[in-house]
Amino acid sequence: MSGLGFELLATDGAARRGRITTGHGTVETPAFMPVGTAGTVKAMTADAVAATGAEIVLGNTYHLMLRPGAERVARLGGLHRFMGWDRPILTDSGGFQVMSLAGLRKIDENGVTFRSHLDGSAHTLTPERSIAIQYLLDADITMAFDECTPFPATEEVAAASMRLSMRWAERSREAFVERPGYGLFGIVQGSVYPDLRAESVAALTAIGFHGYAIGGLAVGEGQAAMFETVAYTAPMLPADRPRYLMGVGRPEDIAGAVARGIDMFDCVMPTRSGRTAQGFTRRGTVNIRNARHADDPRPLDADCACPACRNHSRAYLHHLFKANEILGSVLLTWHNIQYYQDLMAGLRQAIVDGRLDAHLADLHRGWAAGDIPAGEGT
Amino acid sequence: MSGLGFELLATDGAARRGRITTGHGTVETPAFMPVGTAGTVKAMTADAVAATGAEIVLGNTYHLMLRPGAERVARLGGLHRFMGWDRPILTDSGGFQVMSLAGLRKIDENGVTFRSHLDGSAHTLTPERSIAIQYLLDADITMAFDECTPFPATEEVAAASMRLSMRWAERSREAFVERPGYGLFGIVQGSVYPDLRAESVAALTAIGFHGYAIGGLAVGEGQAAMFETVAYTAPMLPADRPRYLMGVGRPEDIAGAVARGIDMFDCVMPTRSGRTAQGFTRRGTVNIRNARHADDPRPLDADCACPACRNHSRAYLHHLFKANEILGSVLLTWHNIQYYQDLMAGLRQAIVDGRLDAHLADLHRGWAAGDIPAGEGT
Repeated sequence: MSGLGFELLATDGAARRGRITTGHGTVETPAFMPVGTAGTVKAMTADAVAATGAEIVLGNTYHLMLRPGAERVARLGGLHRFMGWDRPILTDSGGFQVMSLAGLRKIDENGVTFRSHLDGSAHTLTPERSIAIQYLLDADITMAFDECTPFPATEEVAAASMRLSMRWAERSREAFVERPGYGLFGIVQGSVYPDLRAESVAALTAIGFHGYAIGGLAVGEGQAAMFETVAYTAPMLPADRPRYLMGVGRPEDIAGAVARGIDMFDCVMPTRSGRTAQGFTRRGTVNIRNARHADDPRPLDADCACPACRNHSRAYLHHLFKANEILGSVLLTWHNIQYYQDLMAGLRQAIVDGRLDAHLADLHRGWAAGDIPAGEGT
Repeated sequence: MSGLGFELLATDGAARRGRITTGHGTVETPAFMPVGTAGTVKAMTADAVAATGAEIVLGNTYHLMLRPGAERVARLGGLHRFMGWDRPILTDSGGFQVMSLAGLRKIDENGVTFRSHLDGSAHTLTPERSIAIQYLLDADITMAFDECTPFPATEEVAAASMRLSMRWAERSREAFVERPGYGLFGIVQGSVYPDLRAESVAALTAIGFHGYAIGGLAVGEGQAAMFETVAYTAPMLPADRPRYLMGVGRPEDIAGAVARGIDMFDCVMPTRSGRTAQGFTRRGTVNIRNARHADDPRPLDADCACPACRNHSRAYLHHLFKANEILGSVLLTWHNIQYYQDLMAGLRQAIVDGRLDAHLADLHRGWAAGDIPAGEGT
C-alpha cells in the first residue's frame, strides 16, 4: 500500500460512508476525533477513550513541540506509545495555534517565529519543521502547514493568505516522507470566497495529497456561512480521498456537514464542555451545575451507555461539580465523547440505510424538544 | 444473621486473616479502605476503584451531611446508589472532622456545635444525629460518635476525653438500628496510656459492638508509639470481631499493624499523594515530578498491573504532572490504590501461608532499597 488507504462504502446524497486504513488500524467514517492536545484527551484514560468507540484522536503539534518536545516523544517510541493509544492519530500542523499567539508571533514567507506561552522561549515553525515534528510524533495522518485565514478577511487579504498556504502546502508535500499506512492532508483555504476556495482546491489537487481538509472555518463565520462554504467546496474535492472539516463543531454542525460530504471532524467542545459542566444529550445541552438537577434521580441521558449515565444520577453529577471533584470532569467528559461517538455511529448507519434525511430530522427534533424537567415523565 | 458477619480464617502470630460479611457483600481482611470523602474516591470512577480489588470504601459523615446532605442521599436511594458503588461502605461518625474545626466548634456533654467550612452555617452533631445520618447514608458499617483525643494529652485530659467518648458510645449503641448485614463499631480511645486503653476496651465490650476500632492514633505520636499502643490494645479486643485502626497509614505502618492484629485500615495517603505526584512502589515512594523521570521509558512500578504502569512510562506521568493534566491525578491515584490493594493481598496470602515474618522482611527490603535510577537496569 502506498500512503493512506480510503474506501468509499456507501453514499446518501452528498453524504459518504467510508473507511480509512492506516498502519495503526482503520477508522470508520464519518468520524469524530477527540482532541488530545498535550498527549492526553483531557481527563480520559486511553482505555476510556477507546471504550467510547473512538478510533482516532488528534494531537497538537504546537503543544507537544513545547512540552514534552517532539524529539523526546520520538525517543520514547512515538506518540502512540507515549499516550498508550495504539490506534490512529492525526496531528495538526501547529499553524492554527501559533497564529493565535497575537503579539507573540511574526509571520513571513519562510514560516512563523513565535514565543512559547509556557516560558517565552523563541521558536520557529516552517512547513519543513512542522512536517519533521509530525514525523517524530509518528502521526498516522500529518497535516500540511498553513495559515488559518482570520475571519472576517477581505478577498484580497484572503487570497494572499491562501496563496501563502498553497506555497507552504507544496513545501509540506516535499518534506513529507512517504510510507505505507501514513498520509499527508492538504488544507483548503480561501475564507468564504468560492473563487478562492476553487483556486485552493486546484492548487492542492495539482500537488496531490492523501486527503483534503477544509480549513479557515469555525472561526466566527456562523453556521450558515460554514454550511454554504462546505457545500460548494466538498464537491470540488477528489471523491476517492477523505475530507476533513477542521475544528467543527457542535452536534448540529457535524450532522449538517456530514450531509454535505464531510468524512472527518475534530473539536474541543465535548472535552472542554465536560470540564465546565455542559453535557450533550439527545435532547440538547444540559448545564449539570443548574440547581434543578440537585435532586434528580434520572441519568443525564437515558439512552447513553457511558459510566456517567449507566451508574449515576444527575443529582450525583451535580454534586460532583458543586464540590469541585475531579470525577465530575472525568464522568462528563466521558459522557460527551460517548455522545459524539454515538452521534457518528448513527450518522454512519443512516447513510448505509439511505435514510440520512429522516435521521437528521429525528436528531433535530430531539435537540429542539429540549431537556425533560425532573418529574415530568420518562 | 444478626448484624455484621465476621469469620477468622487463619492466624500467623498476632496477625489475622478474616472475612467480613455485609448485606452488600464480603470484605477479605486485612483490608484497606480507600477514602471517598464526598461520595467519590477522588479522581476515580467506581469501576476503577473496583478494578483495583478494593472491596469496601469509606465515606465521611461530616462532608456528606453538609453537601449534598444526608436526607438528599437517602431520597436518592442511599450512598451506594449515589456513588454507583454496590459493595460495602463504612462511614465515619463525623467526630474527627468537626474536632478539627479549631475556633469553629464548641463541645459539651450533648455533642459538638460547629460552623460549616463551606458556608458558615451552624450545625450540631450528637451521637444520635451522627448515627441517624449514617443510617440515612445506608452505611454497612457505622462508626460510634467519639472525640478523637488530641495528641499530646496529659493522662487527666486523655481520661476525661475517653470517658466522654464512652458515654457517647453507649448513646451511639442505643441510637443504632440493628439490622441483618449492618454493623456498628465502637472506638477505643485513651491516647498512649495503657490503663486508659484497657478501661476503654472494657467499657466498649460491656456495651457490645459488631467491631472495634482503635482511634486517636496517626495524629502525630509517631510510628513507634502507634505500634506500641496497637500491640497492647489489639489483644484486649474480642478475637471474634473485626479490628479497625483508623487513619493509618503509610505502607510500612499498615504492614506493622497487620502483624500486631489489625484487620482494617483507611487513609487519604494513596489518594492525596496521587494528586500531588507521589507514587507508592515496591521500592519506596517516587516523586514523579522529579526531572529525572522526564526521559524514563520504564513504568512507575514494573510489577504493577494498573493502567498507569501497564500503558505508560514514567516520562508520560511526569509530563502529565508538568502540564497539570487531570489524567496525571487520575493515573497516579489509580496506581496508588492498586499498590495498597496489592499490599493487602500479599499480606493476606502471607498470613494464610504462615510466612508473614518473611514477607514483612521482603517488603522492608524493597522499600529500603529505594528506586532504581533510569539506565541502571531493573
